[in-house]
Amino acid sequence: MLFSQVQAAAQRLRGHAYNTPVMTSHTLDNLAGAQVFLKCENFQRMGAFKYRGAYNAISQLSDEQKSRGVIAFSSGNHAQAVALVCKEFSIPAVIVMPDNAPTTKRAATEGYGAKVIGYDPLTQKREEIAASWVTEHGYTLIPPFDHIDVVLGQGTTALELCEAVPGLDMLLTPIGGGGLLSGSAIAAKGVTPTCRVIGIEPEVADDATQSFRTKSLVTIHNPPTIADGTRTPSMGKITFPLVLEYVDDMQTVSEASIKEAVRFLFYRLKLVVEPSGALGVAALLSGAVKSTGRVGVILSGGNIDADTMTLILSEQ
Amino acid sequence: MLFSQVQAAAQRLRGHAYNTPVMTSHTLDNLAGAQVFLKCENFQRMGAFKYRGAYNAISQLSDEQKSRGVIAFSSGNHAQAVALVCKEFSIPAVIVMPDNAPTTKRAATEGYGAKVIGYDPLTQKREEIAASWVTEHGYTLIPPFDHIDVVLGQGTTALELCEAVPGLDMLLTPIGGGGLLSGSAIAAKGVTPTCRVIGIEPEVADDATQSFRTKSLVTIHNPPTIADGTRTPSMGKITFPLVLEYVDDMQTVSEASIKEAVRFLFYRLKLVVEPSGALGVAALLSGAVKSTGRVGVILSGGNIDADTMTLILSEQ
Repeated sequence: MLFSQVQAAAQRLRGHAYNTPVMTSHTLDNLAGAQVFLKCENFQRMGAFKYRGAYNAISQLSDEQKSRGVIAFSSGNHAQAVALVCKEFSIPAVIVMPDNAPTTKRAATEGYGAKVIGYDPLTQKREEIAASWVTEHGYTLIPPFDHIDVVLGQGTTALELCEAVPGLDMLLTPIGGGGLLSGSAIAAKGVTPTCRVIGIEPEVADDATQSFRTKSLVTIHNPPTIADGTRTPSMGKITFPLVLEYVDDMQTVSEASIKEAVRFLFYRLKLVVEPSGALGVAALLSGAVKSTGRVGVILSGGNIDADTMTLILSEQ
Repeated sequence: MLFSQVQAAAQRLRGHAYNTPVMTSHTLDNLAGAQVFLKCENFQRMGAFKYRGAYNAISQLSDEQKSRGVIAFSSGNHAQAVALVCKEFSIPAVIVMPDNAPTTKRAATEGYGAKVIGYDPLTQKREEIAASWVTEHGYTLIPPFDHIDVVLGQGTTALELCEAVPGLDMLLTPIGGGGLLSGSAIAAKGVTPTCRVIGIEPEVADDATQSFRTKSLVTIHNPPTIADGTRTPSMGKITFPLVLEYVDDMQTVSEASIKEAVRFLFYRLKLVVEPSGALGVAALLSGAVKSTGRVGVILSGGNIDADTMTLILSEQ
């Protein structure tokens, strides 16, 4: 049922999201002791898988809802995804972003035509700002992960990978709020029921791993990880049960191994991948996941700023 | 005749060199006012097109020649290409490299199993060192560009691009010593006779452009360009006449535009491309080449070190 909804989302996304390439590397295969297939969502529109979920959710709004506009709160890839999709539908987009968000992220979001509303995270709650736009102006809130249409849209990533690479034994996916992981697990199990789906998380931001093991939702605020896409304090009401149902295991990786993976992808694969996007490769290179057979890895995004890349390259 | 030899080289390279992907970008198309097709030789084995020429030349040596070994002088991609090909054929490789070459380049070449011989560029000539290995030990010298089998091997880059993208109106190719440019021009004219082939060179290293315009070989020693692959002092005895015969035009680009192109490829395309490899994109973004229709661009390599990338990212 959910799998067929991922398939329907894939139909919806056709001609809008890219069916991103799958890349391979002899060197990585040798290091991992497996055949590794990298799903390059860093090449996705606006540079990350987030476009898929945003498009799948926004495209299904009624004309009435579309004309009123869409609101989201995010300082990361979800903001740019919502802004880009709204631009394509020519509908108003408002993004609520902390005043201290990097100017490059704000500029990128505004570059897609969205209105960015700043707030002081010490004195204001972004949920309240967003709620006022919903109630006063009729905007529709598109959450970054805890929304079934967002989950189903993200699942098209693994659907494409599993269709392009039949018989995967294992799929490694980053986990932040759980949208990509739960959607991808639904899709992978639908195509290849024997595929083990494993979520990869930074050690210092292991709320999802703890939640998975204890079956009780754990929250970690502002974890000090370089993988900014995984700083989400916890999974959501929709994603947590899906992760418990569809995901086989969770593993964590150190900050050092995340940086090592970004460098490896830069030097050996010539790919620009952001730290959150390199979690799966970090798990393989560090041995956190023992791999054999055919292993799919989702490189979830490539939006990395100069300071972060410079820091990572300086540590080699 | 030469075109059929490029086709023969392509047969020889099958299963050894990658048929690298061709990437596109809406943003680049809009900025260039053309449909742009990027041939990603940064994804080639050892990270640059140089593998093609080295393989095409070395694979045709006799068993006797192979068993004696191969020598090359280079501190760049040609060194790694020769080293990797020799490793695949299990034959001895000696690379003559200046003592002041970056340790990373030396390590990469040694990593492919080659013996690296250092020399003091102020007091020793690398040609003499190489010659002694040729005469005393029977090694075969594989030059970086001025060798017909090297030229024909490099031409397979454009052959693949022109076959993958029919009807190219224009092809932009970096020019250092002219191996890639002349080989690619032979191939492009063979597949698509109406395709205009244009060599792109740094302004501060415009020996080939001057040579092309004056029809007399111009030499520039140690030009101060960030595009290290184009610091070759001049084209060669084989490549210069081929460039005059097959190439339609040459254009130069500034150092600033080369860096801008590397940044554009990093941020927007998520591709790691070395400065020499970004010359074609620099020509499009800077307007040095007025493009329309279907434009092929060879991204010739992705071997960039941390210091260079950090410098380029810091200037945005």
